[in-house]
Amino acid sequence: MSVCEFESLEKSLEAHLPEAELTEVKRILFGQGAGKLDLPSGAVEAACERNFELKGYRFDAVQEQLRPPRRTRVGLIQHHIVLPTDAPVLEQINAMHSRIGEIIEVAAMCGVNIICFQETWTMPFAFCTREKDPWTQFAESAEDGNTTRFCQELAKKHNMVIISPILERDELHSTLWNTAVVISNSGNVLGKSRKNHIPRIGDFNESTYYMEGNTGHTVFQTQFGRIAVNICYGRHHPLNWFMYSLNGAEIIFNPSATVGALSEPMWPIEARNAAIANHCFTCAINRVGTGLRDCASFSFPQEHFKNEFTSGDGKKAHHDFGHFYGSSYVAAPDGSRTPGLSRTRDGLLVAEMDLNLNRQLSDKWSFKMTGRYAEYAEELANAVRHDFKPHVVKE
Amino acid sequence: MSVCEFESLEKSLEAHLPEAELTEVKRILFGQGAGKLDLPSGAVEAACERNFELKGYRFDAVQEQLRPPRRTRVGLIQHHIVLPTDAPVLEQINAMHSRIGEIIEVAAMCGVNIICFQETWTMPFAFCTREKDPWTQFAESAEDGNTTRFCQELAKKHNMVIISPILERDELHSTLWNTAVVISNSGNVLGKSRKNHIPRIGDFNESTYYMEGNTGHTVFQTQFGRIAVNICYGRHHPLNWFMYSLNGAEIIFNPSATVGALSEPMWPIEARNAAIANHCFTCAINRVGTGLRDCASFSFPQEHFKNEFTSGDGKKAHHDFGHFYGSSYVAAPDGSRTPGLSRTRDGLLVAEMDLNLNRQLSDKWSFKMTGRYAEYAEELANAVRHDFKPHVVKE
Repeated sequence: MSVCEFESLEKSLEAHLPEAELTEVKRILFGQGAGKLDLPSGAVEAACERNFELKGYRFDAVQEQLRPPRRTRVGLIQHHIVLPTDAPVLEQINAMHSRIGEIIEVAAMCGVNIICFQETWTMPFAFCTREKDPWTQFAESAEDGNTTRFCQELAKKHNMVIISPILERDELHSTLWNTAVVISNSGNVLGKSRKNHIPRIGDFNESTYYMEGNTGHTVFQTQFGRIAVNICYGRHHPLNWFMYSLNGAEIIFNPSATVGALSEPMWPIEARNAAIANHCFTCAINRVGTGLRDCASFSFPQEHFKNEFTSGDGKKAHHDFGHFYGSSYVAAPDGSRTPGLSRTRDGLLVAEMDLNLNRQLSDKWSFKMTGRYAEYAEELANAVRHDFKPHVVKE
Repeated sequence: MSVCEFESLEKSLEAHLPEAELTEVKRILFGQGAGKLDLPSGAVEAACERNFELKGYRFDAVQEQLRPPRRTRVGLIQHHIVLPTDAPVLEQINAMHSRIGEIIEVAAMCGVNIICFQETWTMPFAFCTREKDPWTQFAESAEDGNTTRFCQELAKKHNMVIISPILERDELHSTLWNTAVVISNSGNVLGKSRKNHIPRIGDFNESTYYMEGNTGHTVFQTQFGRIAVNICYGRHHPLNWFMYSLNGAEIIFNPSATVGALSEPMWPIEARNAAIANHCFTCAINRVGTGLRDCASFSFPQEHFKNEFTSGDGKKAHHDFGHFYGSSYVAAPDGSRTPGLSRTRDGLLVAEMDLNLNRQLSDKWSFKMTGRYAEYAEELANAVRHDFKPHVVKE
């Protein structure tokens, strides 16, 4: 057992496989769609100085006769918390703002048009503790909270659409939500998308804090493409991705917070399957931190909680949720994907995509045309009835 | 570029990665659920003599108090055609019967309870030619065709449930179907499951031969578990897997015929995503053959067709569809999977699975409970209307 967290699948393959085999392995694992995107040297230097990984990829499409290319650059940011979890709440939030500010500056240098942060990015992912205090104090108004105002400034300054997933305080209904605020590059709040599916995984029950969202499957028309946000646990629900796609999403973001022991083998599968099945791009973002011995990131505080808590699994009380393994990536409708960001470091992934690829793949593979959705609508309406009789044949 | 088809991702990783890294890479790629299953030495010898790969894996579940373990062994067979595609039809069918007969004998030695063959296993996958003659002559009655009678004998002899995907001739309705015949271990035909989604991929349009199936999402209750069959292109449709699962399927088989250039990066994703999303086991089976230079299998005839045909892609007329890359595998509800069989050799994959794992995973991850299906039934009914208005927010 290494004393460090394993840094990345991709690095391991590149370090050890002979070139001819590496080419085949990468083709099978990642497809052939993602090429390297050259990024400005100033951005590369700044990322190095500011201690985060910077990677660029591009997905091209065939040149059409009647539509010009529709190239959009998206940015995915994964990061540690910045201050310890017992620092004053406002200081923690402000420190996270500063960190994002310095990363997004590099995103701007890379020409990013739409950027998405990780789930509840302004706070530690403290829902495993089941404590209300101080964690609900991180909740803010989606429309005019500090964090939204901070993002509005950045959006205007960098001419960038920003997806800012926060813990939302909804004063109007005296309730909390897990919400992505979508801010236009004009600086206006375009709207919000609430988490549709709330985890009950073992004893990890986020409905202690917020319930299933009521914003449906809203799609946001931006200057850079039609986007939607499927927050975290919603990636396990193929119908959730599907309905965003039926509403016209060309890129679906999946800001997440998930740990290794629980979900890591599922991580490369679900968002990518959604890109294939729905002829769209998907962007999966996971935070980093709290490795057993997280060497590469020892300079960051970890998501360690002062009060111990149990997890309903027979194990002793403990102080953290597990290792958030990063590995953020972009998947394309042709089944290809980018390599993942590091499992341990803060990072910015820049992906340029020609959105024309979606319709080209749809015209080729025809999943929507062959989907028989009217029949499924009937079958599903029947299946949810309490007296549903499954169609089972016996001898 | 090698003169041979690349044999397997797994072999390449095992040959080159240092042990500690290999462990992590395998954990991330395959999860940790599949252990090695010891197979009888007689079976291993027979597989070697008969020139096919034999692999065994097991998926365990936690021992429960109120249910005994429900261990089932499934077998997946992938194979080349046996005679050239211009041999007399009946000789081709009979040769394929003999080949399957000798592989299934080994499956019986391994204690397999349920076995599934590849899509339209009695014939070359000739639908790319768009010729009716002689390919429609391979069609047989699902109820009392030669192949079904052959399978009934095997089922009784080996006490095995057999899933036999064939080209079906439905005399009653003067039509053809792409159909899996499910034969009970008693030897009785339990029923049939027709391909629900028919590919229109580029110019590859199987509806030249058969249309969308009308058997819905039938599940078969066998002595060894509740099973369903999602044929080939249906794996791209998450709703198809989902509806089999809602009808109670514990294992969903996906007999396929698909080639590298088209689908290989999607192959490890889709069936596995279905196992995760639906808390069930899935078994993906693909044929082998027709590699550019298919060294490992040069002793088998390839799926080479006498008359050249074009593929609507601007390329020159050619004589084969591409490389069927095998790589059959089993995926489990915990996100883990077996390694794939070879990309080039005939093979039998034996997987023992404790079906109790499905409910255990469902109780842990709760995707069905958190699925909000009643709301999706409404949304979908609305979305299929010709005057559907997508929910798009603009500035």
